[in-house]
Amino acid sequence: MAVPRDRLDAWITAERDAALERLCSFLRFPSVGTDPAHAEATRACAAWVAGELAAMGFEARTVATPGQPMVVAHHPGPGGDAPHLLYYGHYDVQPADPLRLWQSSPFEPTLKAGPRGEQIVARGAVDDKGQVSTFLEAFRAWIAVTGSLPCRVTVFLEGEEESGSPSLDHFLAEHAEELKADVCVVSDTGMWDVETPALTTRLRGLVYLQLDLEGPNRDLHSGMYGGAVLNPLNALARVMAALHDDAGRVTVPGFYDDVRPLGSDLRAQWADLGFSSTAFLADIGLAHERGETGWSTLERTWARPTLDLNGLWGGYTGEGSKTVIPSKAHAKLSCRLVADQDPQTIVEAVQGFIAARAPADAELNWTVLGAEPPMAVPLDSPWHRGATRALRAVFDKAPLSVASGGSIPAVAAIKRRLGCDSVLMGFGLEDDRVHSPNEKFERRCFENGIRSHAAFLGEIAGG
Amino acid sequence: MAVPRDRLDAWITAERDAALERLCSFLRFPSVGTDPAHAEATRACAAWVAGELAAMGFEARTVATPGQPMVVAHHPGPGGDAPHLLYYGHYDVQPADPLRLWQSSPFEPTLKAGPRGEQIVARGAVDDKGQVSTFLEAFRAWIAVTGSLPCRVTVFLEGEEESGSPSLDHFLAEHAEELKADVCVVSDTGMWDVETPALTTRLRGLVYLQLDLEGPNRDLHSGMYGGAVLNPLNALARVMAALHDDAGRVTVPGFYDDVRPLGSDLRAQWADLGFSSTAFLADIGLAHERGETGWSTLERTWARPTLDLNGLWGGYTGEGSKTVIPSKAHAKLSCRLVADQDPQTIVEAVQGFIAARAPADAELNWTVLGAEPPMAVPLDSPWHRGATRALRAVFDKAPLSVASGGSIPAVAAIKRRLGCDSVLMGFGLEDDRVHSPNEKFERRCFENGIRSHAAFLGEIAGG
Repeated sequence: MAVPRDRLDAWITAERDAALERLCSFLRFPSVGTDPAHAEATRACAAWVAGELAAMGFEARTVATPGQPMVVAHHPGPGGDAPHLLYYGHYDVQPADPLRLWQSSPFEPTLKAGPRGEQIVARGAVDDKGQVSTFLEAFRAWIAVTGSLPCRVTVFLEGEEESGSPSLDHFLAEHAEELKADVCVVSDTGMWDVETPALTTRLRGLVYLQLDLEGPNRDLHSGMYGGAVLNPLNALARVMAALHDDAGRVTVPGFYDDVRPLGSDLRAQWADLGFSSTAFLADIGLAHERGETGWSTLERTWARPTLDLNGLWGGYTGEGSKTVIPSKAHAKLSCRLVADQDPQTIVEAVQGFIAARAPADAELNWTVLGAEPPMAVPLDSPWHRGATRALRAVFDKAPLSVASGGSIPAVAAIKRRLGCDSVLMGFGLEDDRVHSPNEKFERRCFENGIRSHAAFLGEIAGG
Repeated sequence: MAVPRDRLDAWITAERDAALERLCSFLRFPSVGTDPAHAEATRACAAWVAGELAAMGFEARTVATPGQPMVVAHHPGPGGDAPHLLYYGHYDVQPADPLRLWQSSPFEPTLKAGPRGEQIVARGAVDDKGQVSTFLEAFRAWIAVTGSLPCRVTVFLEGEEESGSPSLDHFLAEHAEELKADVCVVSDTGMWDVETPALTTRLRGLVYLQLDLEGPNRDLHSGMYGGAVLNPLNALARVMAALHDDAGRVTVPGFYDDVRPLGSDLRAQWADLGFSSTAFLADIGLAHERGETGWSTLERTWARPTLDLNGLWGGYTGEGSKTVIPSKAHAKLSCRLVADQDPQTIVEAVQGFIAARAPADAELNWTVLGAEPPMAVPLDSPWHRGATRALRAVFDKAPLSVASGGSIPAVAAIKRRLGCDSVLMGFGLEDDRVHSPNEKFERRCFENGIRSHAAFLGEIAGG
């Protein structure tokens, strides 16, 4: 079908104040999913979004879970073999504390003038209510202009993303048949800058382990035993230190075996981004680059696997001194993974490496606290190409293919449970103060987001 | 003067029940110096010992401190240029908890039959009231038999030994002129076994340091920063691991420079002791020797310096996972020192070694929590030779020259403030349950202790 680009664009422009007002209604719900004091508002928010979708012609409902309800909505689109898109997002928000640092009430959205135009200031403005609204408003535009959607669309929103999505995996497994689609579309990431769109094509995975190392059967006096028996703290430091070589590489055999090479075009594109490693480090009080030699800071955080200690404890940690050789020492460590590393393989490799280096008499107990695979979007899929064309049309500039050092558990769960890849098309900016006081969304980003989703639907429908 | 050995011995034998009864009176005071609930009993105990000394003819008093009172007593002995001996001990005891594990009341001394004869069971039976009583009864014997003491004697007992001796150093400095003597005699150590006397001739010293290592100016998300910035936990593990080589030696340059070589005769004597490394390790659930290669377990704990981590902490240490790269990481570490290592030199060497290996951007903050010098008794002093002869006479067996892996802060403070070396002549046994429920002192050890101190006085007086 021919994409009615001009008519969609005209409608979106004409409706901009109404769209903003709808977003403000969404933002007024203090849907802090993690806080029991806001349980009612969170449920009311879910019902409100379901109502909005129903009003547009979706078959929409909320579904109870042990935690917050899921919003599930279906639109048949044009019928036939039109592509089926699953839109994932979340309607819950982070707590607003500390309240005294907000310049306006977090749940009374306020328009403020900023250097790049108007800003919508509220908790959830960009994460994720504003971004969810970019696709809701794109649906509304298509339905208003053409009477329907050009694709079959399923919307799936959760209310527990800010609490670690405890109900998500089980829900996806239980509702896999209903939710399965050709691709999943997520708007919970960012642009490169206000003028440059981006598609997030790589997310690092994560394995997270806890090691409890036991030596002597009780705490010992270091005067009586020091120098002659296994000290679990000395031993822990030693095995942990052995995990990296002097060049910052992880020494675990096979650790890098499955890392997909980073294409020279992508490296060149990233090198051209004008990213300032100096500014990145200065912001956190540091002056020196660290990590694997041979890679830039962006490459290290976007495309290289890592191993970091996240916690370390044992022995006496109070005021003053105690001459103890403790019975136990503990570490929490995690690896960020990149495609195509397999979490289980890495878990076993790290455990094996440490077991081989642990001293005699040391008993190792492991707890696996997380194992999420990395994600790399195929750059040659119709979905990626469609998103690229849509963003180029709206911004008059090709989108950058960027990465995120973190993981989005929902993307991994959707891949695992539904078999769907995701397109991560986001409109946030670095300075949006996500999770912080005075969170904002640039009005320009909001509206370009609506236009981008409208264009994407057209591209996917066969434009 | 001729030592009236037979008359002393006869008197000690005749008085054995009376001596035991006096020790029981001493033990009935619940002088738990650290516990405010026992403040009155602790003061009463000090007054009681001072009274006993005064009754023997000492000029005796208690002296108030910010904590528990000191007992100070002087006996002029025969006058002239007789040697002047300072006897140090403590009248306070450890708390008796857990009470339910005591088979008899901790402050109602009980005689029990044991495999080696009668045992005196009570809190403080051996640590240190029973051992203090060995020299008090020796004084009593000399005075009863000869009308005086053969040496000038000063007794100095504290009531805060079990609380870390907070008033001791200042008190010694303030009363240095009054307390200075030719040598200090301490009975707070052990025998090799019930038939084999021992002189403790080496005590390890201690330096204790806390390191606070700061990297980024705030806690970071490991997804966004992992692999590209200084992780203080990784860095801490690395510098701590570098402190030992694969042979268990401390790698700090100069660490071993001032270690006095261990004589081959002492090594041979220790090798002949029949010490079982296997049993020592099995008791704490271990099967493998550790530490510096080339040394036995006894040599490692008695005569070699060490470096041990005593505490390690930083990052997330709660349940579950948190993907944090913390701003700070912390360690407590200590070195046991042997003669002639200097605590200040070692502090500086360890700090310098770590500073040189700390990564760029790491800020190191040090706190020195302890710096006690090691002690090695000169084996050719008249005091050591006198104690050796006295013990051989009583036990019909030469005393072993043993070491203690721990330090006795009072011995170091007396050396520092009064300039006196110490003779450590103790009568405890390994299984006396010091600091534990059902603490005991073998009656045989008590009485041989009295005989040994009586003989020692005679030897020193010129026997």
